Amino acid sequence: VAQDRLAEKQLFQGLGIPTAPFAEPEGLSAGFAAGTVLKRRTGGFDGRGQVRLAAGVPASAVRDAARTIDAPSLAEEVVAFRRELSLVAARTPTGTVACYPLVENCHRDGLLRETVAPATNVAPALASAADTAMRRIMNELDHVGVLALELFEVDGALLGNELAPRVHNSGHWTIEGAATSQFEQHLRAILDLPLGDSSLRSPAAMVNLVGEEPDAAAVLAVPGAHLHRYDKVARRDRKIGHVTVIGSDEHERDDRLAAVRDVLYR
Amino acid sequence: VAQDRLAEKQLFQGLGIPTAPFAEPEGLSAGFAAGTVLKRRTGGFDGRGQVRLAAGVPASAVRDAARTIDAPSLAEEVVAFRRELSLVAARTPTGTVACYPLVENCHRDGLLRETVAPATNVAPALASAADTAMRRIMNELDHVGVLALELFEVDGALLGNELAPRVHNSGHWTIEGAATSQFEQHLRAILDLPLGDSSLRSPAAMVNLVGEEPDAAAVLAVPGAHLHRYDKVARRDRKIGHVTVIGSDEHERDDRLAAVRDVLYR
Repeated sequence: VAQDRLAEKQLFQGLGIPTAPFAEPEGLSAGFAAGTVLKRRTGGFDGRGQVRLAAGVPASAVRDAARTIDAPSLAEEVVAFRRELSLVAARTPTGTVACYPLVENCHRDGLLRETVAPATNVAPALASAADTAMRRIMNELDHVGVLALELFEVDGALLGNELAPRVHNSGHWTIEGAATSQFEQHLRAILDLPLGDSSLRSPAAMVNLVGEEPDAAAVLAVPGAHLHRYDKVARRDRKIGHVTVIGSDEHERDDRLAAVRDVLYR
Repeated sequence: VAQDRLAEKQLFQGLGIPTAPFAEPEGLSAGFAAGTVLKRRTGGFDGRGQVRLAAGVPASAVRDAARTIDAPSLAEEVVAFRRELSLVAARTPTGTVACYPLVENCHRDGLLRETVAPATNVAPALASAADTAMRRIMNELDHVGVLALELFEVDGALLGNELAPRVHNSGHWTIEGAATSQFEQHLRAILDLPLGDSSLRSPAAMVNLVGEEPDAAAVLAVPGAHLHRYDKVARRDRKIGHVTVIGSDEHERDDRLAAVRDVLYR
């Protein structure tokens, strides 16, 4: 399901989880009113191979664009979302679920750059909707292990966007920021052991290292910063590590996050 | 220095760190007044190969006992200590030192069984003395990396007992209990990177798994418990893992520690 954007969106729909309007390109009588984005149904990641079409293009333009993608694609209406939120959760074979708090993700050039945990100013109704959506999905799929759910916040509501049935980049903050890391939680889940406490220990933020190694000494001179290197060869647009920063409150976390950004992007 | 108990004790003495009275067995004119313990100068660990002699034995008895040990030994006066405390610290090549708080260790049959962090009711003067002793030792040895210092608390004072120039069993609680684990701290130190925050994040306790695998599900059903397995073959008196338990305060930590003990020893 998570490998096919159409099946994924149909799953959301079937479980009563709102999504952006979507259709197979062949089935459209016109492009979507707010603009259309064409995405590969399978094999796409980090925004690669997506085509965007202006508002109100005719059906023929959508189909022409779909033919430029060398794989079946899905047409979705462009969503003017306020922000991307996500959450990670774990489920055991016997159906116990533990959800981490909603976090806020910031992308640039199609790549996840930062995750802030917890997401700021989340209305209780949204947090509860995300939790409910996650449990419905996990139970429907009879999922075992960790799963990530990416959502768009639009006009105070959540739209289901994407699933990742695994430990997830937007959950890396849990290593330092949560009582139990998503990696420990995944092992507990697949071994059918009691799940750990998934609550926040400290406000945290995660910054991906993309394309080049940072100045490790400068990063680690920021109080509360921890550096995770993946021992990968640095290449343009490749995630080769991440930095997590924690603070005793969100204000301190934000100051430290700003200091980490200064080191990485100055 | 840390491999030879005589050199170790002489180091303490030279740095003004009090120790139990000690001597080479050949040099004693009588056993110590409070009793004598003979320990291998090198190669001893976990209390193996130690010989205890009653108070007031003659010098000949000490020398006879020393001959039963197949290596040079050191005679020490038996110390009626209140408790064993220890601390772990890290030092960089340029001399920056970060000390973790004093912790309390409980041994049984010569093996470390439990560490409680922080040690309860430590007088500020003791904490400060431990910190000073650690810094003197690290600077004198020009040590780089993590080092553990074991101390006895006797009549409100600290006696230097033993050094371990490495990450240490009594520092395993730092993985969940401190802002930076001793393992991360060791890497920062030897790579001459800024040291991380060594303060406590939550009261913590560590229980060694000795000789047999625990009931993992029962251990992990205790809130705040984390299980660390070393993937070693279980053998009598062999440490094959440990459990760390954290709590929001010392009271909660103690309740959870009691629950872990119930699982392991029931």
